[in-house]
Amino acid sequence: MRIDVAFNGSATGQGDLHDRVVLVIDVLRASTSIAAALGNGARAVVPFAGVDEAMTRARSLDRSEVVLAGERKMVPIPGFDLGNSPRGFTREAVAGKTIVMTTTNGTAALANTAGSAEVLVGAFVNYAAVLARLRAAAREGKSLVIQCAGSHGRFALEDAVCAGRFVRGVARRGIAPELGDAARVAAMIDRRMGGDLAAVLRESEHGRALVDAGFGEDVDDCARLNAHPVVPVYRERQVVPLGLQRRR
Amino acid sequence: MRIDVAFNGSATGQGDLHDRVVLVIDVLRASTSIAAALGNGARAVVPFAGVDEAMTRARSLDRSEVVLAGERKMVPIPGFDLGNSPRGFTREAVAGKTIVMTTTNGTAALANTAGSAEVLVGAFVNYAAVLARLRAAAREGKSLVIQCAGSHGRFALEDAVCAGRFVRGVARRGIAPELGDAARVAAMIDRRMGGDLAAVLRESEHGRALVDAGFGEDVDDCARLNAHPVVPVYRERQVVPLGLQRRR
Repeated sequence: MRIDVAFNGSATGQGDLHDRVVLVIDVLRASTSIAAALGNGARAVVPFAGVDEAMTRARSLDRSEVVLAGERKMVPIPGFDLGNSPRGFTREAVAGKTIVMTTTNGTAALANTAGSAEVLVGAFVNYAAVLARLRAAAREGKSLVIQCAGSHGRFALEDAVCAGRFVRGVARRGIAPELGDAARVAAMIDRRMGGDLAAVLRESEHGRALVDAGFGEDVDDCARLNAHPVVPVYRERQVVPLGLQRRR
Repeated sequence: MRIDVAFNGSATGQGDLHDRVVLVIDVLRASTSIAAALGNGARAVVPFAGVDEAMTRARSLDRSEVVLAGERKMVPIPGFDLGNSPRGFTREAVAGKTIVMTTTNGTAALANTAGSAEVLVGAFVNYAAVLARLRAAAREGKSLVIQCAGSHGRFALEDAVCAGRFVRGVARRGIAPELGDAARVAAMIDRRMGGDLAAVLRESEHGRALVDAGFGEDVDDCARLNAHPVVPVYRERQVVPLGLQRRR
């Protein structure tokens, strides 16, 4: 099996995905928030590219069962229940609810995974849980594509460090994958720069922008390794915790 | 001033380019071949995305003054004078000629630089010459975008190492640019992996594919630092050596 990493763009650019597991990473902040929401008992996170679509979908659901969440230019959207701060997705706010979410980078990355065998959502906060799932897939011989959301279509350091940590986690103890160029480099980035996660996140371009916009605590929350041990799976246009039946 | 690196995609994805200098890198093999051609006296290299376009353009020129060059899936195109092997662009073959060229990745990267202040073409073979030009621009306060061609829209290690070497070359002795995330990472990639250029090129995915296809000598040629000390500038849809008047 092999591991490919895409630092930006779309997983479909990596070729045929039908027998590959795709891991989507948007550390700051969508995949961290998704893990926080599911870890705190949300039934599902339903990502939408557009604000209007998200609002329309939210209106079609029972108001007591839905939480409308998202950001544009980092700040919460007027009229929404939550922004994109992981700490907003508390058990009180989300348990038993469906989260309708729209974010700048993360939702697009999820949408562009069509045709893959399985799509997972990973971040530092659910690293060990997702890694176990990836290693199980690798042992079955399934190749992996790690798709970083990036920032506005560009390389984002925080996603690359996280991707590299997953590469390193899979490629050890009995599993020796073939690594694409970007997977090799991602592993090196984590090895060289991932020692102090909170620091590397704050030093990244996106992290600095969030700190400047008053979201420094969010950045620190996104560095909390294994704080939300959940495996989010993207199926039929919604993200659910692995093992939980999708609610119809 | 600042330096941004794009590992793949298009320079226009880096935002407004009108006051920025763009350096396009396609080490294996287009930018190396362009430097070889201009270094050996070609008047200009005219890149085309499509084979048919290239042939049409070549027919519109005096046959004795044009060389038709290019590859698809690494091998020379039937009926063309040259493939994309740098060693093919000898003084005998190209001096005084216009090279009409089509390659898989490099020509697209050049096309997507519209609106920038200046577009240069760099590789290891013309590193020092291009670096001098970049440092002059940086001293004038001009920001830089280094656009790697990548491989089929994906990250390519050889271009990232070369981009990182340019970042490191600009960012020293009196010039302290702000570095985007990808520029920081590129510099680290060169520092950690660029010690033996011929080896890193042969170990890259694209390099291995070229070696397997019988182009191992080309890969080694692409690692020959400063073998062709020329500064290729892309202007009005053709690449000319800096300082030479464009032929009309």
